Amino acid sequence: MFESAELGHKIDKKTFNIEVQKLRAALLDAQFELREKGKFQVLVLISGVDGAGKGETINALYGWMDPRYLSARAFSTPTDEEAAHPFMWRFWRGLPPKGRMGVFSGSWYSMPIRRRINGEINQAFLDQRIDQINRFEAMLANEGALILKVWLHLTNEDRKKRFKALEKDPRTAWRVTKESWNSLKTYDKFHKIASHVLRLTNTSWAPWIVVESANDRYRSLTVGKLVLDALQKRLTDTKRREYTISPPISPRTNSLDVLTALDLSQSLERKAYQLRLAEAQGRLSELVRLPEFRKHSLILVFEGSDAAGKGGGIRRLAAALDARQYHITPIAAPSQEELAHPYLWRFWRHVPKKGRVAIFDRSWYGRVLVERVEGFCKETDWLRAYAEINDFEHELMADGAIILKFWLQISKDEQLRRFKEREATAFKRYKITDEDWRNREKWDAYHHAVCDMVERTSTGLIPWVLVEADNKQFARVKVLETVCDKLESVLRVGKKK
Amino acid sequence: MFESAELGHKIDKKTFNIEVQKLRAALLDAQFELREKGKFQVLVLISGVDGAGKGETINALYGWMDPRYLSARAFSTPTDEEAAHPFMWRFWRGLPPKGRMGVFSGSWYSMPIRRRINGEINQAFLDQRIDQINRFEAMLANEGALILKVWLHLTNEDRKKRFKALEKDPRTAWRVTKESWNSLKTYDKFHKIASHVLRLTNTSWAPWIVVESANDRYRSLTVGKLVLDALQKRLTDTKRREYTISPPISPRTNSLDVLTALDLSQSLERKAYQLRLAEAQGRLSELVRLPEFRKHSLILVFEGSDAAGKGGGIRRLAAALDARQYHITPIAAPSQEELAHPYLWRFWRHVPKKGRVAIFDRSWYGRVLVERVEGFCKETDWLRAYAEINDFEHELMADGAIILKFWLQISKDEQLRRFKEREATAFKRYKITDEDWRNREKWDAYHHAVCDMVERTSTGLIPWVLVEADNKQFARVKVLETVCDKLESVLRVGKKK
Repeated sequence: MFESAELGHKIDKKTFNIEVQKLRAALLDAQFELREKGKFQVLVLISGVDGAGKGETINALYGWMDPRYLSARAFSTPTDEEAAHPFMWRFWRGLPPKGRMGVFSGSWYSMPIRRRINGEINQAFLDQRIDQINRFEAMLANEGALILKVWLHLTNEDRKKRFKALEKDPRTAWRVTKESWNSLKTYDKFHKIASHVLRLTNTSWAPWIVVESANDRYRSLTVGKLVLDALQKRLTDTKRREYTISPPISPRTNSLDVLTALDLSQSLERKAYQLRLAEAQGRLSELVRLPEFRKHSLILVFEGSDAAGKGGGIRRLAAALDARQYHITPIAAPSQEELAHPYLWRFWRHVPKKGRVAIFDRSWYGRVLVERVEGFCKETDWLRAYAEINDFEHELMADGAIILKFWLQISKDEQLRRFKEREATAFKRYKITDEDWRNREKWDAYHHAVCDMVERTSTGLIPWVLVEADNKQFARVKVLETVCDKLESVLRVGKKK
Repeated sequence: MFESAELGHKIDKKTFNIEVQKLRAALLDAQFELREKGKFQVLVLISGVDGAGKGETINALYGWMDPRYLSARAFSTPTDEEAAHPFMWRFWRGLPPKGRMGVFSGSWYSMPIRRRINGEINQAFLDQRIDQINRFEAMLANEGALILKVWLHLTNEDRKKRFKALEKDPRTAWRVTKESWNSLKTYDKFHKIASHVLRLTNTSWAPWIVVESANDRYRSLTVGKLVLDALQKRLTDTKRREYTISPPISPRTNSLDVLTALDLSQSLERKAYQLRLAEAQGRLSELVRLPEFRKHSLILVFEGSDAAGKGGGIRRLAAALDARQYHITPIAAPSQEELAHPYLWRFWRHVPKKGRVAIFDRSWYGRVLVERVEGFCKETDWLRAYAEINDFEHELMADGAIILKFWLQISKDEQLRRFKEREATAFKRYKITDEDWRNREKWDAYHHAVCDMVERTSTGLIPWVLVEADNKQFARVKVLETVCDKLESVLRVGKKK
């Protein structure tokens, strides 16, 4: 969920100034149109970790837009009057009317998260609150509101830097308190709880947009752009569809993303490869035979572009397993019977029972990859799929499944090389089809879809593992070792060297 | 929620036979069309209290329809194979494909309810499960499934009778076990938990339909008819709308309903009226001055057809209160400002703080009454409003609000008499307008809307109070005494005579 917000996004001053000029003009236009058409209100929630720059972001929006039609509300500790009313009363009071925009900092998310961190409420109580929030936001969306939920993300390292910088400047030193420094210590807890809340409130009608916040210019510009994009999209979408909102998914302020950030030059030479592969295979075969494993199952998902090496990776893995214990399910186009059921049905059929290993060569992520890119399903369908897939995986995990999801990433050049090699090699020729070449033409669309997929389905408990796969040896070893490490950490056994 | 299923609905044999002939032919036609068009599957969940006749209902459906395209599944204790897989696995396996119908008895609702009754899980854990169920059903609905959730309701008294009847007959005696008799004792607990589950899973995409089950013929025929109605409606509704399903709301197998069941002849003669009114007013004025009341607020909702006596009832109530403590909010057509916000916004503005009384002369229920009947909002909007209103009221209640909702019911004749009287009396003439006469023409549509409203928003914790109002004295005293009784029970003080 936070992967794409830990890449070190930056914008230089010059680019920023040029971009802001364009943005301001467009934002004012959109705001004017919103006022004139006046059929819906916009609600921007600015949330995130302390010190991520919530106030600065709101100030930037204020500076760029017409303040007469924008109301910013910062909700902190409730006043006496507010405390005498039900929890949601003050938020209802602050709701902007149609044609206007409201920017909330410290929304209905703040208090439940804070109270959970302080241990005042338990997990189940938090989940009740989350359900209420989802029902509330669904109602707002159904009433026409455009809800943009922005999560400003900052690593603890960056927060420390930020606090120090603020302290140095006498004009901002007052903003760093004892609590600021204390919050550095509870960051892990905060992060875990926030991940949980974000996953369960990441609905198709009010999804979260996570924005990296270490660089002030990048943060403000990105938020400004996503407000503009969502607003423009909604203004042109004249016939409102129930219950579905599609803001820009991952903000694209520059070309840095989770895939371009990978170092694909990593490799492993033959000898080291053979040694480490054998060692990992040995570890794996022992791990799945442990009595503790009988309380679990292992689900391995392999995704990657054509010729990324999924098959080879899977074979190296399976070599370490007893054939009676695992099953490989290759996922191609759905059958007639499968099409007659909800799209997750065909995967439920292959959910392993306890003590077993299920390997998926492509998977339910087809919904948000090929089906999205090729237009096999509607936008509303793949947009809701992110939350449905998260629900599905977390349900399996709650039952004991250990889930690992691998995305094998290769460069466009490396794919071309492999395609040509396949065509030239007799026994590999069956592996390359016209469809592969057609898919290759949609490289950018797939790239975008993969970034969105990682952004929205890499949860705190079931993250995506991105594998640099230009070098097959490196990729195979990374996959196998990751599986072993995960199994060891769940089954709580010491590392065997 | 269960009011309309405790009225003693019955169908005689002759009517039943005639109706069933028609129903069977129509069901087979609809089933054929479903198979041919084949764009969605139908899921009928038959739930309810033990002994309500779940098995018989499924048998009846089987007898009436083509069994080749109908699959019935009874889920009880999981098998070893099922227990080795995640909870939902067996339900996914049993899912009918598009073009078919599946009837489930013992669905995903059974286990959470049973485990809560046995105390194996707590309330918050149950709520987590409910949230998962809602997300799961939303996904099914989005995938096109038509979900009909039937709740067979039987009072404990009727259950006892039923068990005795089954025991007498040697062919059915085996069906009555020790657990059957035991379940009579835990009925209150079951009822409370079931009410809670039904309220929170009563979504617009998969609402519950409660069916009175004391009479076998009425039960089977009603379920058969509602399956037919929903199926026909969906088959003609060619363009599927996201997330909204509108099955027939309250099943209408005969003319008996919560309103026709009222005895409107009840009255109170002048002297008794004056005595009881004065006494209740005295009680009320004391109750709201109790220190305990400062932790609560009182919200009184008055609804009723024109000239039902809402104003008079409210005046008698207010007479007992300190003007600084209460506020009467008359609800008419919304203002421009109010229209610019979600429909609940204008009621949130008048939510009382602790220690105060808010009286609403008409209310948020306008959404499912006048707005529905007059077509001021779309069907999808008023359909989702039931759950939104329940959420709203329960949120207020969780914050300490004591909520009472009164529906004042008068006969059509009495309304006419009062209209004429108003026209004839100088100082009452302002109270009667052309609109009142127009509304009167829609008597039946309002009648239907009120039944649906009571059915779907009379929850275990915040039930509707139906007031027989043909006699004004009787109605006023019933309202005041109900308020006093409720306050006393919440504030836990002994009855003061």
